Amino acid sequence: MQRALDIDRSRFADWYQAVVRDADMAETSPVRGCMVIKPWGWGVWEQIQQGLDRRIKETGHDNAYFPLFIPLSFIAKEAEHVEGFAKEMAVVTHHRLKTIDGKLAPDPAAELEEPLIIRPTSETIIGDSFSRWIKSHRDLPLLINQWANVVRWEMRTRLFLRTTEFLWQEGHTAHATVEEAEEETKKMLEVYRSFAEDVLAMPVIAGEKPENERFPGAVATYSIEAMMQDGKALQAGTSHFLGTHFAEAQNIRYQDDAGGMTFCNTTSWGVSTRLIGGVIMTHGDDDGLRLPPAIAPRQIVVVPMLRDKPEDAEVLAYCESLVKQLNGFHIFGQPLRAFLDTKKIKSAEKRWNWVRRGAPIIMEIGPRDAAGGNVTFMRRDMLREGDKVKSISCSRQEFIEEKAVQLLAEIQHGLYAEAKTRLDGNIKGGITDWKGVEDYFAGDEDSFKGWLKVSWSKPTGADLEAVDNKLKTLKLTIRNAPLDQPTEFATCLFTGKPGVEEILIGRSY
Amino acid sequence: MQRALDIDRSRFADWYQAVVRDADMAETSPVRGCMVIKPWGWGVWEQIQQGLDRRIKETGHDNAYFPLFIPLSFIAKEAEHVEGFAKEMAVVTHHRLKTIDGKLAPDPAAELEEPLIIRPTSETIIGDSFSRWIKSHRDLPLLINQWANVVRWEMRTRLFLRTTEFLWQEGHTAHATVEEAEEETKKMLEVYRSFAEDVLAMPVIAGEKPENERFPGAVATYSIEAMMQDGKALQAGTSHFLGTHFAEAQNIRYQDDAGGMTFCNTTSWGVSTRLIGGVIMTHGDDDGLRLPPAIAPRQIVVVPMLRDKPEDAEVLAYCESLVKQLNGFHIFGQPLRAFLDTKKIKSAEKRWNWVRRGAPIIMEIGPRDAAGGNVTFMRRDMLREGDKVKSISCSRQEFIEEKAVQLLAEIQHGLYAEAKTRLDGNIKGGITDWKGVEDYFAGDEDSFKGWLKVSWSKPTGADLEAVDNKLKTLKLTIRNAPLDQPTEFATCLFTGKPGVEEILIGRSY
Repeated sequence: MQRALDIDRSRFADWYQAVVRDADMAETSPVRGCMVIKPWGWGVWEQIQQGLDRRIKETGHDNAYFPLFIPLSFIAKEAEHVEGFAKEMAVVTHHRLKTIDGKLAPDPAAELEEPLIIRPTSETIIGDSFSRWIKSHRDLPLLINQWANVVRWEMRTRLFLRTTEFLWQEGHTAHATVEEAEEETKKMLEVYRSFAEDVLAMPVIAGEKPENERFPGAVATYSIEAMMQDGKALQAGTSHFLGTHFAEAQNIRYQDDAGGMTFCNTTSWGVSTRLIGGVIMTHGDDDGLRLPPAIAPRQIVVVPMLRDKPEDAEVLAYCESLVKQLNGFHIFGQPLRAFLDTKKIKSAEKRWNWVRRGAPIIMEIGPRDAAGGNVTFMRRDMLREGDKVKSISCSRQEFIEEKAVQLLAEIQHGLYAEAKTRLDGNIKGGITDWKGVEDYFAGDEDSFKGWLKVSWSKPTGADLEAVDNKLKTLKLTIRNAPLDQPTEFATCLFTGKPGVEEILIGRSY
Repeated sequence: MQRALDIDRSRFADWYQAVVRDADMAETSPVRGCMVIKPWGWGVWEQIQQGLDRRIKETGHDNAYFPLFIPLSFIAKEAEHVEGFAKEMAVVTHHRLKTIDGKLAPDPAAELEEPLIIRPTSETIIGDSFSRWIKSHRDLPLLINQWANVVRWEMRTRLFLRTTEFLWQEGHTAHATVEEAEEETKKMLEVYRSFAEDVLAMPVIAGEKPENERFPGAVATYSIEAMMQDGKALQAGTSHFLGTHFAEAQNIRYQDDAGGMTFCNTTSWGVSTRLIGGVIMTHGDDDGLRLPPAIAPRQIVVVPMLRDKPEDAEVLAYCESLVKQLNGFHIFGQPLRAFLDTKKIKSAEKRWNWVRRGAPIIMEIGPRDAAGGNVTFMRRDMLREGDKVKSISCSRQEFIEEKAVQLLAEIQHGLYAEAKTRLDGNIKGGITDWKGVEDYFAGDEDSFKGWLKVSWSKPTGADLEAVDNKLKTLKLTIRNAPLDQPTEFATCLFTGKPGVEEILIGRSY
């Protein structure tokens, strides 16, 4: 069977690369580990950015912007406070170039007194502002979000999933009490969960990370975990309750009613361009990407079937008015996004381009459609019937008045339902001993396994490390302890002690 | 007279700093030359970003995103090609920190083989993609825009006007012909002009920069120039026709109909967070900032006059429904932005905070208003009558049905008209010799002078340099040669030759 990609999902890593490339999402750049996000990929990010930004604002947060650079002394202070502090960062040491022996090089006379770090995350530089902005309890809660680029020097990179530079939002908040900060941490986790499911059509499990997977310095770290089509987990967003840890390091205090100075409780939370990788690995098929309509930069693409003949003008006019009518509708609380593709390439080439890019509805309008007042279209979520591409015809009026909006909603829900069935059907319970885990994950590491849900006694410290090492022998990690927990637990699979919690284990990105 | 700022515009530089600070727009950061953009300042940038982004898309451009880092070899290649190439840039030389003698420092073992530059502008890194994306004439024009942070190591910085890191958009386009590229350059200049005037209410003069003020490597550079309230010019946006200069350096070629490979003609154009500085210096008054409603994050702010008494609940409910009604309107093609300020501080303090921040309409609603179905408000553009703040009262119904939208439009136009009068009234013509220029700009450098419009013979090379040096003795520069030119010219003021063009000269930021 002829597919729009020359590789299918059985070779998942290669397939992923092919989709990213053939869907015009991104490309590698000449800068090690950095990506170029192409217009179609950027269009998806814009939809994600705008949709999530609305939800962040609706929950009372203000956006602001802080410097790209962090002084080394800030980082050093954090390193003193934070165990597990990562040191792979881009370091700026000079502020001028000079031609030396005929070659452009950093000017030795322009070495910085104090090196600057490109922000890997902004707790320290934002905390510095917080320490000045917060004086009394009336300044609390302080609820700030930033959209920014960050840099972490990664050794092994993969487009969208792990890149040296990536784009994200990072929320940073300060509160008077532990309770308020904990509530905020969970509120933003819920924002991420509902955004992933309702907008990205990507079902996730929200839960708490085990102690050893916490953000360095956090009291508690929560995540949403999505299951990719190879059964591996993608951590798609995290929310951290930081206690007074960062407030103490950065002197973020408020005057309470009694006049005393008290450290704030802070939180931070973020999602990144990694979400795009999650969308691709959740919804892509053997013909390329399938985009949930809520984030498709173009939801309905109209391809006019032009043949360099006089009737072309009529077809074009018909298509133009069709697109105009469609753009008058609203869906998902936003104007519908229909687009007329007038690029001067063959219409068959256009069709396959839009199939690979995952436009939810692709319309092909020829002279007969125009003359008869009809339309012909494909649904990207159900592209084929058997081997063949399935074209659907109906009257233009019916499409506009009854189909367009409903179809987009149906595609959105259908993609979610398909992924939800995969997630729910591949979290396996009932395994109660380590032998069972070994047997389950035996064989080819790349074959589809999904996740296990097991009971454990929630060991800490060295006991947790022992569990972690055991899991590592099978390349497994604890994903999270779902917020949704039963009331009774089996015996801990790792320690033999009474179980107190259920956790998910699996392979991951 | 008591003003909301403790300094007035007679000390313009200090006044500017006071407005930036007291309007909560931005603050200096611990990182040399970098600013923290506070929520109110960021809100203004969001309005600018969204409004301009719509116009950039409407003119056919797609957004994309390119790496923050540029390899030194790319920069070196540009330096070979480009005269006047600036070398003040942030240079990344290491990718890891290490504790050495108890102190965190760049790890000598993690020195990069090739240093990376933080992008000061992205012609080289975007050109690299263009050279791969463009194959045939069917790929042209290629119309790309990027929203990004850039870094230029500035010695003297001022919030928004000149900072080491700033935010901007940079358009980069490639075309088959000189004519198309020139048309694009001027089209985007016109987008900037209309955006500055219609949205920022900041009148500008669009024109061409003289040869010595061109972007390094450009064939022609155009700018929009705005007049600040101290009479100085602010270059508020630039658009460059680059010819085949960059295409040759980066091998951006297309196959023409005959099968031959031809270099593209390219353009680039940008505006930055500097626009916010322009808005402040155009519209601010002795009470702080005045924001044009089109970019005010909150256009109508409602301050409930609460007194910790039982009737507070009624006042709050009245204000809430008022804000809800107002937010149902549209203005400037967007939903109206009304806001209820429920922060727990005194209402007088709130009033002055919003005055300093420049919210266009500030409403103060007390129990009497609520009981009588009335509203009381201030117009920020006409805050005072004599010394006193002018409060206006009317029925709630009248305000909602007849006043709100109209007043915002009126304030927008009023701010523009005020600035337009200042610009038009302070471009002085009729001076025909150098002595006249010297006399005109004699005296205190900081006193209001405005600009001169003079004829010149458009000298080049060494002759232009001589003119430039002469102007420098009075701290003057040529701003631009307005697009709008007369048909006859006086003798050149500098060379005594026949005039061929009128230019604007003045002091600038």
